[in-house]
Amino acid sequence: SQRYRIAAILGDGIGREVVPEGLRCLRAAAEAHGFELDVVEHDFACADHWLRHGAMLPPDWKDVLGGFDAIFFGAVGWPEVVPDHVSLWGSLLQFRRGFDQYVNLRPVRLLRGVRSPLRDHGPGDIDFRVVRENTEGEYSNVGGRIFEGTDRETVLQETVLTRIGVDRVLRYAFDLAAGRPRKHLTWATKSNGISIAMPYWDERAAAMAKQYPDVVADKDHIDILAAKFVLRPGQYDVVVASNLFGDILSDLGPACAGTIGIAPSANINPDRTWPSLFEPVHGSAPDIAGRGIANPVGQIWSGAMMLEHLGEPAAAAAVLAAIERVLADRPEVLTPDLGGPGTTEGLGTAIAAEI
Amino acid sequence: SQRYRIAAILGDGIGREVVPEGLRCLRAAAEAHGFELDVVEHDFACADHWLRHGAMLPPDWKDVLGGFDAIFFGAVGWPEVVPDHVSLWGSLLQFRRGFDQYVNLRPVRLLRGVRSPLRDHGPGDIDFRVVRENTEGEYSNVGGRIFEGTDRETVLQETVLTRIGVDRVLRYAFDLAAGRPRKHLTWATKSNGISIAMPYWDERAAAMAKQYPDVVADKDHIDILAAKFVLRPGQYDVVVASNLFGDILSDLGPACAGTIGIAPSANINPDRTWPSLFEPVHGSAPDIAGRGIANPVGQIWSGAMMLEHLGEPAAAAAVLAAIERVLADRPEVLTPDLGGPGTTEGLGTAIAAEI
Ligand SMILES: CC(C)[C@H](C(=O)O)[C@@H](O)C(=O)O
Ligand SMILES: CC(C)[C@H](C(=O)O)[C@@H](O)C(=O)O
Repeated sequence: SQRYRIAAILGDGIGREVVPEGLRCLRAAAEAHGFELDVVEHDFACADHWLRHGAMLPPDWKDVLGGFDAIFFGAVGWPEVVPDHVSLWGSLLQFRRGFDQYVNLRPVRLLRGVRSPLRDHGPGDIDFRVVRENTEGEYSNVGGRIFEGTDRETVLQETVLTRIGVDRVLRYAFDLAAGRPRKHLTWATKSNGISIAMPYWDERAAAMAKQYPDVVADKDHIDILAAKFVLRPGQYDVVVASNLFGDILSDLGPACAGTIGIAPSANINPDRTWPSLFEPVHGSAPDIAGRGIANPVGQIWSGAMMLEHLGEPAAAAAVLAAIERVLADRPEVLTPDLGGPGTTEGLGTAIAAEI
Repeated sequence: SQRYRIAAILGDGIGREVVPEGLRCLRAAAEAHGFELDVVEHDFACADHWLRHGAMLPPDWKDVLGGFDAIFFGAVGWPEVVPDHVSLWGSLLQFRRGFDQYVNLRPVRLLRGVRSPLRDHGPGDIDFRVVRENTEGEYSNVGGRIFEGTDRETVLQETVLTRIGVDRVLRYAFDLAAGRPRKHLTWATKSNGISIAMPYWDERAAAMAKQYPDVVADKDHIDILAAKFVLRPGQYDVVVASNLFGDILSDLGPACAGTIGIAPSANINPDRTWPSLFEPVHGSAPDIAGRGIANPVGQIWSGAMMLEHLGEPAAAAAVLAAIERVLADRPEVLTPDLGGPGTTEGLGTAIAAEI
């Protein structure tokens, strides 16, 4: 039978609590759908690799991880020990860039059993995809500080957009929109204020739109787009955004759809030259770590996206269906962020049993 | 009696419809509170100055406007005729920089009579201030394009933070928080991803916090902060943010508090070396312009902020009280965005009558 090699990185904080539940569900899916998973755990986190070696990753990390079929990632970050920009640029952001995972795909759906903080919105009313550029843009490490410690102190940081980088993520998003019933794409911009980078983004998006006459494409400035996520989230279908704007929209969208705890993401290398990486949208959440109450659904749903990517769509669909059934019908196992009394393990076990 | 010289710039789109209502209310306040307003209108907009001169402003705009006590601004932008980055960088963003209006103060309040899109939130539950840096940061015009038209095409745009620029807006925000009952300040950041500029912002904010031991200061990354505006807006008191983050938060906040149509803003030069500028948060909204249904409350409330700045706090309070009474008690005059059947002029007239 088919065998997939998975690198699991539990990471820090609640990552260590939710990844085991994700693996539990993946194993249940493998058994039910007749494939095998070889899971190798890696200790690339603040709490272990950093403490032992003073670095988030070994120098040969690309060789160590590059041969896996996919990476199943929890969350990294332990700000009391390592500044976030060091731990994140030392691991997650390395993977995204080094493995050319240029699409960060983040579904936003209001599921049955989940209560939206928005009035007048029920299951099915919110269902869109955020396609986030994942390798360049505002997340650059070009820049620095001059006149340090004086009144003239000035800090510069470059936003970098390349034609290759912009076009490839736009193409992915337009292809995605073209395959959906509503065929609607919105690109996030801020070309009225960010007057060099964002007009370029608009220009490339408008050019790409010409190649997709069937897709209804429009743009919204990020400020009003954020507002419309709250006021009229139902109008969106595919939203494509730069690295930073995609980051913001993909936390805001899930909040409108109930909780960030259930939101999944796929860091995809569509050319499959390197492994893709699957992780929940939430972070390591040091404030609730260690209490066994973190919501594992974002991690489990990310597992479903991984199965889809690996070529197991039936298993992926089964995982998602199991999530939906448990959310809708088993209020007693839901975690506190979903309004329930349950635990991480209890919720993970319930979903695995459904699979 | 006291006399104030006001430059009015109606601008484009709905700016031309809401500024007259703002002036109507300001005149009513002047009459009731015994001061005088000299209002001089200026045609600095796409629809007039640009069409006649091919520029948004005359070369001597600083002299023309610099002597006024304040600027009362509608909205600029007519993207079919002038690209937004040209019209905005040609006017509004010039004023903010040229007149050193380094604080953009944007109150977010859920008022009586306004329905929040958020469940479980009623009048009084949302009441905070966004303090937006207004002259530097992500809104820079430093950068450009190289290898144009080729596969190597690359666009760079610099984010610029200066110690002077960061510290002065932080100081304003901490002073503001220190004077409020809850004394709570949150700074927006994204230091885990924007790894050069934002760690600097954090560093300056943390240093400033040490000078304000009475203020409870914490930080949130912009992605989770946007989510929390939807999930728990009541927890915020003063939120200080960079130019771009402040832009996003000050549209998102008002959306959570009902509608962007009522949100005011003050572009303040705290040193009073140049006039400050008062404008609604909303833009020129070409899609609804010309129909007489734009909500004038953001403009009128901006007028109240202007009166406060000019040293007429009683008049300012009267305008805000009139707004609140009309919103709560006169549903028949409310504009469509507030769920009513009313018009711009009808709502403006009703508020002026209350004053
Ligand atoms: C029109 C635009 C340039 C402006 C900004 O981004 O500052 C507006 O959105 C605002 O918030 O005042
Ligand atoms: C942790 C942080 C660097 C990361 C990001 O900003 O990309 C996270 O917020 C995410 O959305 O994956």
